[in-house]
Amino acid sequence: MNSNIEIKHIEKSKIDTVDFNNLPFGSVYSDHMLTCTFKDGKWQDAVVEPFAPISLDPSAKIFHYGQSIFEGMKAYKDADGNTLLFRPLDNCKRLNKSAERLVIPQIPEETFMNGLKALLKVDDAWIPTKEGSSLYIRPFMFASGNGFHASPADEYKFMICTAPSGAYFAGKVKVLIEEKYARAANGGVGFAKAGGNYAAQFYPTQLAIEKGYNQVIWTDDNTHEYIEEAGAMNIFIRINDTLITSPTNDRILDGITRKSIIQIAKDLGINVEVRKISVTEVIAAAKSGELKEMFGAGTAAVISPIAGFGFQENDYDLPELEKPYAALLKKTITDIQTNKAEDPYGWRVQL
Amino acid sequence: MNSNIEIKHIEKSKIDTVDFNNLPFGSVYSDHMLTCTFKDGKWQDAVVEPFAPISLDPSAKIFHYGQSIFEGMKAYKDADGNTLLFRPLDNCKRLNKSAERLVIPQIPEETFMNGLKALLKVDDAWIPTKEGSSLYIRPFMFASGNGFHASPADEYKFMICTAPSGAYFAGKVKVLIEEKYARAANGGVGFAKAGGNYAAQFYPTQLAIEKGYNQVIWTDDNTHEYIEEAGAMNIFIRINDTLITSPTNDRILDGITRKSIIQIAKDLGINVEVRKISVTEVIAAAKSGELKEMFGAGTAAVISPIAGFGFQENDYDLPELEKPYAALLKKTITDIQTNKAEDPYGWRVQL
Repeated sequence: MNSNIEIKHIEKSKIDTVDFNNLPFGSVYSDHMLTCTFKDGKWQDAVVEPFAPISLDPSAKIFHYGQSIFEGMKAYKDADGNTLLFRPLDNCKRLNKSAERLVIPQIPEETFMNGLKALLKVDDAWIPTKEGSSLYIRPFMFASGNGFHASPADEYKFMICTAPSGAYFAGKVKVLIEEKYARAANGGVGFAKAGGNYAAQFYPTQLAIEKGYNQVIWTDDNTHEYIEEAGAMNIFIRINDTLITSPTNDRILDGITRKSIIQIAKDLGINVEVRKISVTEVIAAAKSGELKEMFGAGTAAVISPIAGFGFQENDYDLPELEKPYAALLKKTITDIQTNKAEDPYGWRVQL
Repeated sequence: MNSNIEIKHIEKSKIDTVDFNNLPFGSVYSDHMLTCTFKDGKWQDAVVEPFAPISLDPSAKIFHYGQSIFEGMKAYKDADGNTLLFRPLDNCKRLNKSAERLVIPQIPEETFMNGLKALLKVDDAWIPTKEGSSLYIRPFMFASGNGFHASPADEYKFMICTAPSGAYFAGKVKVLIEEKYARAANGGVGFAKAGGNYAAQFYPTQLAIEKGYNQVIWTDDNTHEYIEEAGAMNIFIRINDTLITSPTNDRILDGITRKSIIQIAKDLGINVEVRKISVTEVIAAAKSGELKEMFGAGTAAVISPIAGFGFQENDYDLPELEKPYAALLKKTITDIQTNKAEDPYGWRVQL
């Protein structure tokens, strides 16, 4: 199904209005989008069409019951002008894991991949070539069916929009280890890229920003003793020469950047431990000088180095290293993503 | 502000197409809706306008980050044709509590109340008069501002739609005490009427339905030992002649029906205990015959009696009582709501 994607071209491209040398993140949208509707019990044909407003009944369940999920991906151009994706099928598989938990119909991998490729082909000119820039890709699904009863909808949209983007974060961030709020429950939806997970983070993040931090380090909701995520990213902590990250579970996102970093770090000879890491351990390592690095990992920022953190009214600075793992890992992964280095893993997909 | 609500009347009412004797719940919508937009840092003038689709950019944050909250209310007609609301200001205050947690701007109480009254006046003919029916009222707010960055939006909509409705549930329900999934984290958004809380419940509920139950009894996410909510309702448990309900906290909704029932039950001379109640205690009471009743409480169903529950592969039936508290409490509260009885509490608001 859906192997033939209908293309409805925009009448006049708006690409001339965009300054590709000064791109914000995720705020400028390409000419087209992919739309596929689930109704009458099945996915209808996907269409690439002009980027335009969506019209929904006020009773559409997306407005009331939060049935929405998304993915984040990037497309790059290499020096030869080829379009490159990074592990795109992993995004599709994770979208479907999120979909299962949120009772949204599974999107066939063929629809996802063919739709994505068709969209990127039509909007090829929108893929930035400038160093550090990329085409940010946002696949998302939501309940478009109607009703004020709290139950799954009978109609859904799967869409992909794209946004040529500069880098996500600038500079190192200061983070606050969270002791009161939490982003996910045991047996909840924390592992899914569900819209509601993100809205729930805004208030604690706002409180942290008011205290002078950029982001929150999320801890488990029961004891606040175990470190789980950093803002909307997975987290890595380097103690001496060992890189530690929390194991994934039903509260922690199975990040594609996270698992790529684990693999790359191991192959670079770095000792990686995937295990629970406690706040107590991190504080002790900070005090003894053994805490060398902390960084977030995610598609948007790739790697976001942390300059220091706050905990219980104390601030802890991380050292300025000459050769941090963060920089080495970021260069290694982005070189693979952008075809500046060999890809021994088969992660890079050329369109 | 917003004290003068602009009214844009529908050209032709669709009320003649509606069978008021066979109303589903929340699926038929009245002619008009209230819309108020927050932009440029402030709420713009509210308008009552024809119920019509909402047009949103695909990058609107509602589709991506789950910034959405809602309320549920009902309007009744009494025998004299007066329009009656039940504790409406409490809904407004709770909406604003939800808004704070989801970083949505506070809606002024004046806008909420004046807008609601203006809407109900215009759609007065839509308020059902049939016994058990009501006009279900759905105030909601969501992020209409755009951007693929996970941060609060810069534009929001506050809307009220209404739906003439029959009763929400028919008959007694069988429930399953949840041992794996959870609806709320400590320090999360469980107390708020956030859209994402509801989507997160669909999957566990679906599993329960597949096992032959109607709803899930939610327990705490850490131990699954304490009973928190019943489906999308608060829960009351009667052991001998004592009515027990969980205290509200950051995981449990501060239900308006819940607190009204606590007050009414006390004034009827029923012993009410607001305290944590464990699964162990409920099972023991079921086995000894001391467990007399369980029921959910919420705006839609008012009171939803539970016929029995499942726990760890065992099913427990509740006795058929001649004079259950559930029926007495439901009659008392709905008589107040519909002006069949005096309202010593000042809860009923006549338009």
